[in-house]
Amino acid sequence: MNHSTAVEQTPALLTDLYQLTMLQSYWKEGMAQSAIYDFGMRSLPGCRNYLVMAGLESVLELLESLHFTAQDLAYLSTLGLFGDDFLSWLQDFRFTGTVHALAEGTLFFPPAPMLLIEAPLPQAQLVETAVMNQLHFQTLVASKAARVTQACQGKPFMEFALRRTHGMDAGLKASRSAYLAGASLTSNVEAGRRWQIPVSGTMAHAFVQAHGDELSAFRAYAALYPEGALLVDTYDTLQGVRHVIALAKELGTAFRIRAIRLDSGDLVALAKSARQMLDEAGLLQMKIYVSGGLDEHSVAQLEASGAPIDAYAVGTSLWVSEDLPATSCVYKCAVYGGRPVMKKATGKRSLPGFKQLYRHQQDGRFSHDCIELRDAQASGTPLLQRVMVDGKRVNRPANPLAEARERCAEQLRQLPDELLGLTQASTPYPVQIGPHLTTLIEQLCG
Amino acid sequence: MNHSTAVEQTPALLTDLYQLTMLQSYWKEGMAQSAIYDFGMRSLPGCRNYLVMAGLESVLELLESLHFTAQDLAYLSTLGLFGDDFLSWLQDFRFTGTVHALAEGTLFFPPAPMLLIEAPLPQAQLVETAVMNQLHFQTLVASKAARVTQACQGKPFMEFALRRTHGMDAGLKASRSAYLAGASLTSNVEAGRRWQIPVSGTMAHAFVQAHGDELSAFRAYAALYPEGALLVDTYDTLQGVRHVIALAKELGTAFRIRAIRLDSGDLVALAKSARQMLDEAGLLQMKIYVSGGLDEHSVAQLEASGAPIDAYAVGTSLWVSEDLPATSCVYKCAVYGGRPVMKKATGKRSLPGFKQLYRHQQDGRFSHDCIELRDAQASGTPLLQRVMVDGKRVNRPANPLAEARERCAEQLRQLPDELLGLTQASTPYPVQIGPHLTTLIEQLCG
Repeated sequence: MNHSTAVEQTPALLTDLYQLTMLQSYWKEGMAQSAIYDFGMRSLPGCRNYLVMAGLESVLELLESLHFTAQDLAYLSTLGLFGDDFLSWLQDFRFTGTVHALAEGTLFFPPAPMLLIEAPLPQAQLVETAVMNQLHFQTLVASKAARVTQACQGKPFMEFALRRTHGMDAGLKASRSAYLAGASLTSNVEAGRRWQIPVSGTMAHAFVQAHGDELSAFRAYAALYPEGALLVDTYDTLQGVRHVIALAKELGTAFRIRAIRLDSGDLVALAKSARQMLDEAGLLQMKIYVSGGLDEHSVAQLEASGAPIDAYAVGTSLWVSEDLPATSCVYKCAVYGGRPVMKKATGKRSLPGFKQLYRHQQDGRFSHDCIELRDAQASGTPLLQRVMVDGKRVNRPANPLAEARERCAEQLRQLPDELLGLTQASTPYPVQIGPHLTTLIEQLCG
Repeated sequence: MNHSTAVEQTPALLTDLYQLTMLQSYWKEGMAQSAIYDFGMRSLPGCRNYLVMAGLESVLELLESLHFTAQDLAYLSTLGLFGDDFLSWLQDFRFTGTVHALAEGTLFFPPAPMLLIEAPLPQAQLVETAVMNQLHFQTLVASKAARVTQACQGKPFMEFALRRTHGMDAGLKASRSAYLAGASLTSNVEAGRRWQIPVSGTMAHAFVQAHGDELSAFRAYAALYPEGALLVDTYDTLQGVRHVIALAKELGTAFRIRAIRLDSGDLVALAKSARQMLDEAGLLQMKIYVSGGLDEHSVAQLEASGAPIDAYAVGTSLWVSEDLPATSCVYKCAVYGGRPVMKKATGKRSLPGFKQLYRHQQDGRFSHDCIELRDAQASGTPLLQRVMVDGKRVNRPANPLAEARERCAEQLRQLPDELLGLTQASTPYPVQIGPHLTTLIEQLCG
């Protein structure tokens, strides 16, 4: 696996100024006792029945490579906020903490913690911005993609996120998150190169337009990509299908084009007509792909219609997680200097102490999760695993993305049926607070 | 100005596969005649009265540095789609086209083109994904930020976008786009370093919690940052204000803390009470900043309430342009081989030909824009300027961000009042299609 240069070169200064001013204060005050910080979502958004953990690999790469360059320090010294002694200390700064996290591809339910960072207070605080920036959006995209996977009912879908995601980093990681949660193919070539995701693509309308007439465009394309797919709706979809059939007659046994793609119009009616025309022309093996502003809801409608569609391409605004582009995620101190800490404000209450998340099953399905203090040694499968110790990765998966994808698929099979629907489940998945944690909260609030 | 390594190292493979397969086809077929492609938004989203051009600098950097590495070519050769002859040609591929674009900070109104690329067809097609990926989201963020600027009515606002934007590239460029459209300060240190945006920050709740008691936290902070701002709502906002006053008494003339920040609760009532308490303690010079899930609408409400607020901090979900995380943008061929080209599908019609956008004014305000063919030499101020010729930047601004920020502020002053409101204007800004362009469309559709 080729690790990203882009990520490894992420500047240490890509953080909020207050992380650095607080860091200097902790350093000056000698407040370097160990802290535990939790990262997670406050509550499950109404438009989701579950979330899919994604982004851990990026976070661990960032933590492992975090350092300040001479250029960074030179800039900081211009701000008039930082002492020379602190800046020399920063020069040797490395993240030396321990990280416990849900494995990528794990389904989870807020307020379950997704990741715990155990480190000297200054380090634990400093990394907040980067942890949130990476885990938040990758988890949102994976969670959205899992819904599309469900809507496709086993049919493959391709994602073409890149063009309308928010920048290059988002485009790259949205492709990864989508594949993690069930997409079969990506249009994103760099994502293919970096993570061995199968890449795919057909042609743009502009390709057909540039050739003047559609049949010439199809002929040129088929000559180069004999097993490619042809986009048939540039001028008139069914006329486009006739041009495909004409090309098939022209090429005879050399015709091996595998599919047509419909990108506009009444997709149900057009797919039915196109299927009939292809079948009548003896092109029974040809597939029909559809695209065009699809999301999980429109895919579900197309599936319900019984239209003869073989695969979907989903992109456009979907991969910014359009119905949920951001959610309330928090990174909170749970332990400092060995004592449990909590935020008590109404609606913003955090969970104190060093915790574990336990999953329980019944009849092969997930029944409930329980958040409990580690010391309590509760039952159930512990989901937060140590993935970094003393700043070095441990228990590193051989192929993180493939394993995460398999995990996500497996866990979706174990989710209660009602939670797999696209609408809000009448009863959310139960997440309990264990008795020891409950007692601790009562003590701290009492 | 320090140009970003991250941007300059953006891989050429961060594109859709079909761009490369089409490229090979054009190359094989010798279809290298000059083309003009337009990039723009299809229509003005209902929740916006104007848009703010942003992202051009990123696009030009990408185009200037676009090249395929040996590693890229090695990966492409594994796909079984590309011939060795084509891959050797790719090795020397550079973008050699001409770019005409709206200057950053220009207010515009769809369907006005934002950017035209004039290049041999293969080049013009290849760059689509990168152009969309960068211009689309930066323009969305700048357009959202301009609304916040309006809502603040001249008061400064700080943005802290980074943590919940979609990845690092988005975080960095959202900070730039926000500053471009009127933000005064950023929390994003790297954005500060890279573009000389003033950086700012206070403290996190965790800082107060880690110190155990609030007054100790304030004391430690003020010792290091005597002109800093104190976050007062960790436990109880007004109790926090009392702690600030206690610290002021303790420090006497050494007390120079410039502000308190309120981050939760009834901000109007709390700001009024805090102001009264500070004034009664003789701390008349101290400012009150507020934050906490703010957007342009809540800022406008706070302003309307007359609450004694001196500055706003806006971040959270705002900087993913939460009410408009994506919009319908298109990159369409308008000319190929000297002949005008258009897409005719209903609702997806594109504008053919080599065009210019002209702005007209009346009484010092913008009155309307007109999209017309270049040859027609229409009246009005032409807004699409040449910014790259033969792959090299021209007319390069000395300080792109500062000039764009000034342009945006100046153009907001020239916008008709009704369009400055936060709700949808009853009459949208008029964008006319000039008579020569109208005739051309009729000819092509006829």
